[in-house]
Amino acid sequence: MTRVYLAGPDVFLPDAADWMARKKAICTGYRLVGVSPLDDLPGEPAAWANLPEWRRIALRNEAHIRSCAAVIANLTPFRGPSADAGTVYEVGFARGLGLRVFGYATVATAFLDRTLSSIGGGRRDPDGSWWGADGMLVEQFGLFDNLMIEGGITESGGTVICEDQDRWHDLSVFERCVQAAATALLGASTDRHT
Amino acid sequence: MTRVYLAGPDVFLPDAADWMARKKAICTGYRLVGVSPLDDLPGEPAAWANLPEWRRIALRNEAHIRSCAAVIANLTPFRGPSADAGTVYEVGFARGLGLRVFGYATVATAFLDRTLSSIGGGRRDPDGSWWGADGMLVEQFGLFDNLMIEGGITESGGTVICEDQDRWHDLSVFERCVQAAATALLGASTDRHT
Repeated sequence: MTRVYLAGPDVFLPDAADWMARKKAICTGYRLVGVSPLDDLPGEPAAWANLPEWRRIALRNEAHIRSCAAVIANLTPFRGPSADAGTVYEVGFARGLGLRVFGYATVATAFLDRTLSSIGGGRRDPDGSWWGADGMLVEQFGLFDNLMIEGGITESGGTVICEDQDRWHDLSVFERCVQAAATALLGASTDRHT
Repeated sequence: MTRVYLAGPDVFLPDAADWMARKKAICTGYRLVGVSPLDDLPGEPAAWANLPEWRRIALRNEAHIRSCAAVIANLTPFRGPSADAGTVYEVGFARGLGLRVFGYATVATAFLDRTLSSIGGGRRDPDGSWWGADGMLVEQFGLFDNLMIEGGITESGGTVICEDQDRWHDLSVFERCVQAAATALLGASTDRHT
């Protein structure tokens, strides 16, 4: 069975366990096994029990990702114009391992607009470049987030799907992303398995 | 010569080229070769010329990182409570490749405090957990940023150095980080080479 790691700030939701179960059920419908950051790690080394919790979680998540063929990342902007930092780390980590990465977001506003809105505007130079009120350049490649994220995902053979929905309560965009991942990983059939 | 990739939002500074030259000079003083995201890539594949600029930059940065023994990442909070998304991606990417990663920041405020301040406060449950005004859990492991970042850096054999300084104009914290990297990568001598 093809395993996909479900990265995202979803683990910070009040009903995280139920929510991740719903995401896993959607994966199952597309013949993929969803792996959640909240899952226990089979065969977790006994020595990890002596580590502080944050190190154990980080090692466990890295091990989960190593056990998967791909990552499906929730890139919905989280507490700032960009995706959750832990999720972005995991996207880069997966790409370093050579995995396929797919991303989705329930917000469709472009990175340039989100950034300008977040930092209180900016000014546009005659050459067309945008500078933030913070005195630093604002990326403007028409992408959804920092170019490393979309660059890595594209190069991995994955894709990014964005659509305006109820930010932390929608799973329809996630499902479209799972469908795209299943097509890429398992072949041409994209019908939901019932 | 041991090469280290200099990740960070420094590339968005108005004087980015000069600034990166100063960072490289500091690396040279510790017998390390600093590689900048702004550097040309020797032997860049001709086919890349046909790609859109953002994909070329992403591929070039990934190739730069692959050519290095370690990454030294500027994790100073950037347009939100966390580090720059591109930098976080590169930290994860380097960790996936098995490189050593070192991080530094010119801000010492903990992630919990930065997050609460960024999202307009939160409430503390009787069990001690913090929930943001955005309705989602706030990480509180006493770390400097999301646990994946510090977890990955620690596991790689690197370290994170934070100190309150003039956020985008200080290089003293960077230099301490370069010194720590040189010690870890080259051996015990941490004297600046003059």
